[in-house]
Amino acid sequence: MRYEESVIEGRNVVLEALRSGQTIDKIFVLDGCMDGPVRTIVRDAKKQNILINFVKKERLDQMSETGKHQGVIAYIAAYDYATVDDIMNLAKEKGEDPFVILLDEIEDPHNLGAIIRTANQAGAHGVIIPKHRAAGLTATVARASAGAINYTPVAKVTNMSATIEALKEMGMWFVCADMGGTRMYDLNLKGPIGLVIGNEGKGISPLVKKNCDMVASIPMKGDIDSLNASVACGILAYEIVRQRTFA
Amino acid sequence: MRYEESVIEGRNVVLEALRSGQTIDKIFVLDGCMDGPVRTIVRDAKKQNILINFVKKERLDQMSETGKHQGVIAYIAAYDYATVDDIMNLAKEKGEDPFVILLDEIEDPHNLGAIIRTANQAGAHGVIIPKHRAAGLTATVARASAGAINYTPVAKVTNMSATIEALKEMGMWFVCADMGGTRMYDLNLKGPIGLVIGNEGKGISPLVKKNCDMVASIPMKGDIDSLNASVACGILAYEIVRQRTFA
Repeated sequence: MRYEESVIEGRNVVLEALRSGQTIDKIFVLDGCMDGPVRTIVRDAKKQNILINFVKKERLDQMSETGKHQGVIAYIAAYDYATVDDIMNLAKEKGEDPFVILLDEIEDPHNLGAIIRTANQAGAHGVIIPKHRAAGLTATVARASAGAINYTPVAKVTNMSATIEALKEMGMWFVCADMGGTRMYDLNLKGPIGLVIGNEGKGISPLVKKNCDMVASIPMKGDIDSLNASVACGILAYEIVRQRTFA
Repeated sequence: MRYEESVIEGRNVVLEALRSGQTIDKIFVLDGCMDGPVRTIVRDAKKQNILINFVKKERLDQMSETGKHQGVIAYIAAYDYATVDDIMNLAKEKGEDPFVILLDEIEDPHNLGAIIRTANQAGAHGVIIPKHRAAGLTATVARASAGAINYTPVAKVTNMSATIEALKEMGMWFVCADMGGTRMYDLNLKGPIGLVIGNEGKGISPLVKKNCDMVASIPMKGDIDSLNASVACGILAYEIVRQRTFA
């Protein structure tokens, strides 16, 4: 198990975490605070490309578990993140065409956990999530993944579109899930593939969609708009499994 | 919208609800209480085949929102239940082979909601859930269903095996999801079909499984045991959609 602490508070603690190379998801800093140590934390965090949120004192007080945040609270990744290279290497080691699931801002930790679980069972080599505006690897996600988080690598990237571009240059194809696309059964989803799933409410973002080679639609016969994001991901992931293995 | 109140407390209120024909999910009664009105409630509830739980005073005090439970608390269905006949009639009206999803003790309201949402989109005519040991139609389920609860009928039955038997006599076939079955792609899932999904932890119960004509397995390539129940339901429901529509 790769479980660690998830929230740390106070200047020295956060600074130490930054310097020891712990994976920090986000830092919340008191807005307008110009103290030396806090400015050092902000500078170090920026260097490491960590998301910094400047918030009011009331917000920090509310978030604080110890009541001694000293103007800074950090969220540490509960689980270690992999890199995109780790994922590609895993596919290579197995001698398989890469199969990666990319999540364009999935916010619900239960959905993220269920998707990591699906990725594991569908034989995907990893999951890629964005650094900003998305659920990270927390204890809730670990539970919802039913342990799959310990087997399936999850990488976090700053720019999803740039990651897609880079992987396309390595020969991968990308399919995103959206309404108004081609019926998934009619697409060729074999070969090295990345499946992109959009946000629960907003769906796939236009820039990411533009970068995809194909838009796949699940046939919808119902009266409502869409499926649950983790269910839609499961249906599409298994259409890929069917085509790669049996079609 | 079919939303109503979900918890009622006190002898008169519960008795009134029972007599007015409101759909009551469960009644909690003070264990050992032999008062006239409480005995009347128990008798009426038994007549209507409503689940009665006899619990200690501490438990009732804990559950009570008003602090005035008078030894009885009832959970009212937040949404109206349909009947199995309603579901079969819907299929008939649409001129389609019946497609029903049966849930063998799904406990998580988020899973139940996501499954009702999937049923709606996959064109299933209804969802059947058991009266005991399962999530009912609450506000949480409604939210998780993204409104599908207003379109897709959900019926509640006392005996799932008996319901399956009765529907088999009407010409339906039943497939349950379990490990060690036939790969779902290799089964014939066309025609009038019931898809049975088991409990999140225990899976499908032996008696229900015995009543099914087929056992379908989703190919699992992973390191863990299973998929999330609502994801597994989505994958199987859409294999049925694929076979009915496109294969």
